[in-house]
Amino acid sequence: MQQQHHIHRSIFAGNQKIASQIRTIFRQHQIVAINLISSPGAGKTTILEKTIDFLSDKNIKLGVIEGDIATTLDAERIAAHNVKSVQINTHGACHLDADMIQNVLSNFQLDDLDLLIIENVGNLVCPSDFDLGEHYRIAVASTTEGEDKVNKYPSVFKQADAVLLNKTDLLPYIPFNQNKFSADLEKINGKAQLFKMSALEGEGIDKWVNWLEEKIKSNACLNGKG
Amino acid sequence: MQQQHHIHRSIFAGNQKIASQIRTIFRQHQIVAINLISSPGAGKTTILEKTIDFLSDKNIKLGVIEGDIATTLDAERIAAHNVKSVQINTHGACHLDADMIQNVLSNFQLDDLDLLIIENVGNLVCPSDFDLGEHYRIAVASTTEGEDKVNKYPSVFKQADAVLLNKTDLLPYIPFNQNKFSADLEKINGKAQLFKMSALEGEGIDKWVNWLEEKIKSNACLNGKG
Repeated sequence: MQQQHHIHRSIFAGNQKIASQIRTIFRQHQIVAINLISSPGAGKTTILEKTIDFLSDKNIKLGVIEGDIATTLDAERIAAHNVKSVQINTHGACHLDADMIQNVLSNFQLDDLDLLIIENVGNLVCPSDFDLGEHYRIAVASTTEGEDKVNKYPSVFKQADAVLLNKTDLLPYIPFNQNKFSADLEKINGKAQLFKMSALEGEGIDKWVNWLEEKIKSNACLNGKG
Repeated sequence: MQQQHHIHRSIFAGNQKIASQIRTIFRQHQIVAINLISSPGAGKTTILEKTIDFLSDKNIKLGVIEGDIATTLDAERIAAHNVKSVQINTHGACHLDADMIQNVLSNFQLDDLDLLIIENVGNLVCPSDFDLGEHYRIAVASTTEGEDKVNKYPSVFKQADAVLLNKTDLLPYIPFNQNKFSADLEKINGKAQLFKMSALEGEGIDKWVNWLEEKIKSNACLNGKG
């Protein structure tokens, strides 16, 4: 057990070191990076597709890294939107790590990017321990998962800079207490911005994209790019 | 990396040994055990509540072990149905393991049980590597997660003895191709029995409970208990 604990500590320290190196690369190329985390099927890829469509009108150049256990289904969905998309298959591992991200960065023309979106493996537990060098961590929850998810899986929600509550179009058909969800989030993480949306219907995507655009503009401004 | 691989192999071997010991205990007490695995919010606890209500009419005595990262919410929901329920908090770990199960067995009067239901931590990846001494592994998927989950998270579905497709009441409101889900499952695991249900509405629970009852009766028969 002691040995196992030691190994885990050394894995996290190694990951953190690489994540810092990645963040330095992003700074040099004036890129904002976000890390999307959720349960399987919460709607990350659909949100991403709609986000790309909204951003394409705003002259923001983006790339996508897709994390998945086994398939290239998500990367294919993204590529259909004419965005450079690189798939990482973890072959069973329940999260991406910084080393995997570092290994695929050479696939992008980094000088041409304003935004890099990393879609993590669908998992509400494991990804929370692994910094990928991102600037903003985005947790996605869907109404159909139930209002108790913030309390039951606190780690991901504690660390989130923004929380996207997806599938609001299904609210009329399910028991979901929006006030409880918001209050639980407020209690655990008062800083996280909450965006309610239906990615399928396209509702609410605009507010989230505006938030993201503001982060990109502020990054460009700070770096004298704007 | 070599060392890490070695540690992992030794963790799995250690878990398997304890799982076999647990299965021996279950055999001695003529108990059937099942291990429920799904994404967060797929509806495991609601299915369990409805299953308990159906089984209570059938004179089947059951106990429940609830696995969760951080809270006792699910164990409280089960206890409200007058069933002995023991909570295991994994404190961040993304799955239950056999050691955790062994440690709580003394909380049950094993001779009084026909069925032990273990609800794993909400996770579609990690639990698949850990045998808990169960006889049947049950994967739960919900329609709102999307029809692509079997292919994207194959490990859990490959090992399942039964697959419960929950939230069929929402099918009129979402894009979900039932034929594709069934065909993908058939391709990856021809032996798994598929039960479609809406735990919220109670529809389809009866067929799943009949399957479970048959397993319990056949176990009792083989052990001269029936």
